[in-house]
Amino acid sequence: MSRTPRAPAARGVRGEESLLSHPHPELGAPPKLRKGGLRVTPLGGLGEIGRNMTVFEYDGRLLIVDCGVLFPEDEQPGIDLILPDFTTIRDRLDDVEGIVLTHGHEDHIGGVPYLLRLKPDIPLIGSKLTLALIEAKLQEHRIRPYTLEVAEGNRERIGPFDCEFIAVNHSIPDALAVAIRTPAGMAVHTGDFKMDQLPLDGRLTDLHAFARLSEEGIDLLLSDSTNAEVPGFVPPERDISNVLRQVFANAQKRIIVASFASHVHRIQQILDAAHEYGRRVAFVGRSMVRNMGIARDLGYLRVPAGLVVDVKTLDDLPDHEVVLVCTGSQGEPMAALSRMANRDHQIRIVPGDTVILASSLIPGNENAVYRVINGLTRWGANVVHKGNAKVHVSGHASAGELLYFYNICKPKNLMPVHGEWRHLRANAELGALTGVPKDHIVIAEDGVVVDLVDGRARIVGKVQAGYVYVDGLSVGDVTEASLKDRRILGDEGIISIFVVVDSTTGKIVGGPHLQARGSGIDDSNFGGVLPKVEEALAKSAADGVAEPHQLQQLIRRTVGKWVSDTYRRRPMILPVVVEV
Amino acid sequence: MSRTPRAPAARGVRGEESLLSHPHPELGAPPKLRKGGLRVTPLGGLGEIGRNMTVFEYDGRLLIVDCGVLFPEDEQPGIDLILPDFTTIRDRLDDVEGIVLTHGHEDHIGGVPYLLRLKPDIPLIGSKLTLALIEAKLQEHRIRPYTLEVAEGNRERIGPFDCEFIAVNHSIPDALAVAIRTPAGMAVHTGDFKMDQLPLDGRLTDLHAFARLSEEGIDLLLSDSTNAEVPGFVPPERDISNVLRQVFANAQKRIIVASFASHVHRIQQILDAAHEYGRRVAFVGRSMVRNMGIARDLGYLRVPAGLVVDVKTLDDLPDHEVVLVCTGSQGEPMAALSRMANRDHQIRIVPGDTVILASSLIPGNENAVYRVINGLTRWGANVVHKGNAKVHVSGHASAGELLYFYNICKPKNLMPVHGEWRHLRANAELGALTGVPKDHIVIAEDGVVVDLVDGRARIVGKVQAGYVYVDGLSVGDVTEASLKDRRILGDEGIISIFVVVDSTTGKIVGGPHLQARGSGIDDSNFGGVLPKVEEALAKSAADGVAEPHQLQQLIRRTVGKWVSDTYRRRPMILPVVVEV
Repeated sequence: MSRTPRAPAARGVRGEESLLSHPHPELGAPPKLRKGGLRVTPLGGLGEIGRNMTVFEYDGRLLIVDCGVLFPEDEQPGIDLILPDFTTIRDRLDDVEGIVLTHGHEDHIGGVPYLLRLKPDIPLIGSKLTLALIEAKLQEHRIRPYTLEVAEGNRERIGPFDCEFIAVNHSIPDALAVAIRTPAGMAVHTGDFKMDQLPLDGRLTDLHAFARLSEEGIDLLLSDSTNAEVPGFVPPERDISNVLRQVFANAQKRIIVASFASHVHRIQQILDAAHEYGRRVAFVGRSMVRNMGIARDLGYLRVPAGLVVDVKTLDDLPDHEVVLVCTGSQGEPMAALSRMANRDHQIRIVPGDTVILASSLIPGNENAVYRVINGLTRWGANVVHKGNAKVHVSGHASAGELLYFYNICKPKNLMPVHGEWRHLRANAELGALTGVPKDHIVIAEDGVVVDLVDGRARIVGKVQAGYVYVDGLSVGDVTEASLKDRRILGDEGIISIFVVVDSTTGKIVGGPHLQARGSGIDDSNFGGVLPKVEEALAKSAADGVAEPHQLQQLIRRTVGKWVSDTYRRRPMILPVVVEV
Repeated sequence: MSRTPRAPAARGVRGEESLLSHPHPELGAPPKLRKGGLRVTPLGGLGEIGRNMTVFEYDGRLLIVDCGVLFPEDEQPGIDLILPDFTTIRDRLDDVEGIVLTHGHEDHIGGVPYLLRLKPDIPLIGSKLTLALIEAKLQEHRIRPYTLEVAEGNRERIGPFDCEFIAVNHSIPDALAVAIRTPAGMAVHTGDFKMDQLPLDGRLTDLHAFARLSEEGIDLLLSDSTNAEVPGFVPPERDISNVLRQVFANAQKRIIVASFASHVHRIQQILDAAHEYGRRVAFVGRSMVRNMGIARDLGYLRVPAGLVVDVKTLDDLPDHEVVLVCTGSQGEPMAALSRMANRDHQIRIVPGDTVILASSLIPGNENAVYRVINGLTRWGANVVHKGNAKVHVSGHASAGELLYFYNICKPKNLMPVHGEWRHLRANAELGALTGVPKDHIVIAEDGVVVDLVDGRARIVGKVQAGYVYVDGLSVGDVTEASLKDRRILGDEGIISIFVVVDSTTGKIVGGPHLQARGSGIDDSNFGGVLPKVEEALAKSAADGVAEPHQLQQLIRRTVGKWVSDTYRRRPMILPVVVEV
């Protein structure tokens, strides 16, 4: 096929075979790290949005950047949280010099308590707000951490890692990128970032600093991929303010705002609008109250005197002077907002109330969020959300910003981080478009080990980096097999059959008793199968088979076949044969 | 509060207390229909997107418009389909004059086989393509229906219902709206529609006809709400063609397109692009092959000679001459596309293949679709989808179109249909903005009965209209209780405990045996609870309690408390006491 020059293809429609596609299922354990090399092992965040964690190794010493949690999808029923797998560093915790926390979001700090349980004296390094948020979280786990507070412009030697911290803006204040210098070269980890050119707090992503680092030479850039598929630029956070003011101007009863409990700038804009329109504000919900208290105490949230009141005070105010700020913008069933939608909360929605969902809609939460919106609308609320008003902007750089960023950073090697495979791939293509050679771009995924040796980043192997499930108090006990069982149970239900046999004669002395749950088959309809079970057991006894395990298999087959033939269903079959 | 005139509020931020919010949980059974009145009973599609079905009644006779299915959400695990509840008409099937099918989508025709099972001779009225699609479906159910083929402009008397059919465009050809004249007035049901002003087949939504009906007087307009929250106008379907051509121009290996099996115009554009770029096309998957065969035979799909080939022929063609058209654009796990993403299909994705998801992303399917995109990308495919290219436009009128429509129709009463509560409410507001008096707009939901009497539509009562679940071969056997059990089983797993007691002495002669599935608690950790069960049973025996039901309760409490205390978990506990 002829290869005539052609205009750059539209994103996502590049036809040529790309070096950017190399799944690596066949990778083995990595070799020993070459002396003078820097090893980078992502334990989370590459292949998913969440549980971000990267381990840097130089000369036998380790530096961890972030340690977050991932929230489960519907494929992981009943799970509370998903952690990075610490196996690969579990025996090396004494080698860990510290954990750099780039910012205070759960997907970057939520795993810290579980790691510090293993060794509580690993130092945490982060900005003032980040440390305040993780300390509050650790307090609940009764851990008092060792901390090192840093700020943009600071440079700290952490073991062999010479770390410089750079201001970046994101959907939480005080976020930092980190440049890690070792004799192997300079690695820069962006954390999560965007490049709002008119940030509310005036704190820009420090392109001066990135340009300076670029002059020195960025040997490996680990860069946030979350929005790499999104064309263009994220609008400034402050654009939301005009939309909020319009909503406040038109609202004649209560205003209820749901947002993330860490989105200080979003909440600031709500406070400002409330102040302007003569309303008082109450925070609702533990995490919202706690985080806004921290943000206020540390000076990140400016609260005019008398503006914020206790929720109980609101009863004494007329509706048009009330603003409630709560969580639950993702449709979480136990959050205040869902309970209001279900009339299961002391705050009863009445016609004319205005509800603002000032937040993103995380993929997978659509049904839950729309249920809440429908519920609120049904009781007469005017619901303002991302779908009908510009009440949210993202915290992650879009493709247009990433192009700027790569042209400024001119990384010698690029390693996309923080994203599913499609995001990592899109980010790699942006890097390639700005001139990073394709063979200097590594698309790794969790557990894939990348060594920076002689100025070149290469994939060298793979370590264990599976999902570790937190469910109630148990950490790591829920396995993929348990989840498979749960999916079958949840989709198809269960049928248990109990038989008591005489251990000497092999005769049935009790049962078969049958119990079904969630099968959708009426109990009265099981009459057809019991004789089949009895018959099968009798035949088996006549054949001299009496071993409980074999009888159980027989029962499973008999009942399974009957259900499948009769109802085209495949519930879990749980046969129990007890000998007495 | 003073009410000074103000500019129209932004959508969704209307502060005033609206007549458009009136949930009606307290409605009772409807009174007898007044003589000369028209009764409208929506049995599906009002409160959800799907299972559309509306029953019109005049003078004791019934006319049904559409009879569709709803696809389940994650709250309905294991369910295949959800049907309208036929209870309210089950005893009146002899009164049904016919079922008007507005178009051939599953959410409008999918319930017909289940209704015809109850009475196979109810006539089906629809356009040529619609009838062909439902006949193919009914053939699988071994039902040969009575049909009446109609086309735009036709007027047919169906019992006391004088029906006129009007062309509308939608994401399937040959869609119709229906004007139903009775002495009570004229009701117009739009079906699903949009107003593409440059439709591929030149068949416009017939605004001439709607204007003429409006002159005569539309007493009640039932109008599609699906996109009422979306501002502006849906771009023309033909805009996709340029995007497809760009993708085809750049693709150097195979092109795989996933779309809906009924989207004839979308597939037409793919065929045209393939033809232009010298590729052959094979259809993959039963429904795609069947529907495209029907569309071709009836002249809705124009296929250049030799363009479409059997999938087996493709092996003999070079990659750059191949297009595969399949289903699976919603991430359905058993569809070809998901299996390709999982390397579980004979078609193995290689770097450079191009995959186009030329379809919407139905809310709730995000995780599944992104899993497929990630899987395909991981194997090196360039994936083109709604998120990175304009390869989809909606089939439903957006807010801007609805305003045009209402200004043309000038309905005397408006009843939004086809949508969740938020869509119905948004549609009602659009009607109000164009001048329909708010007290002539009825927001009903499934089962809410609306009577048109003396030119005024009013809610008069409510009938049963719950979800009827299809699961395997069973229809209606899966209850809300079964689903609740499934949700518990799926989230928390199950623990069964079996005890055999001697019926005369009350002593334990077998067990307690414990089996857990999906609990995430390791079997070896249950050692702690068995002694507790034994102890509880012994104490109970000492107290003279031997009734199996009581013992089961005791076991449930004991095990449940232990699991909750030890693991903060609440699996289903299934205790069984068998007496021998």
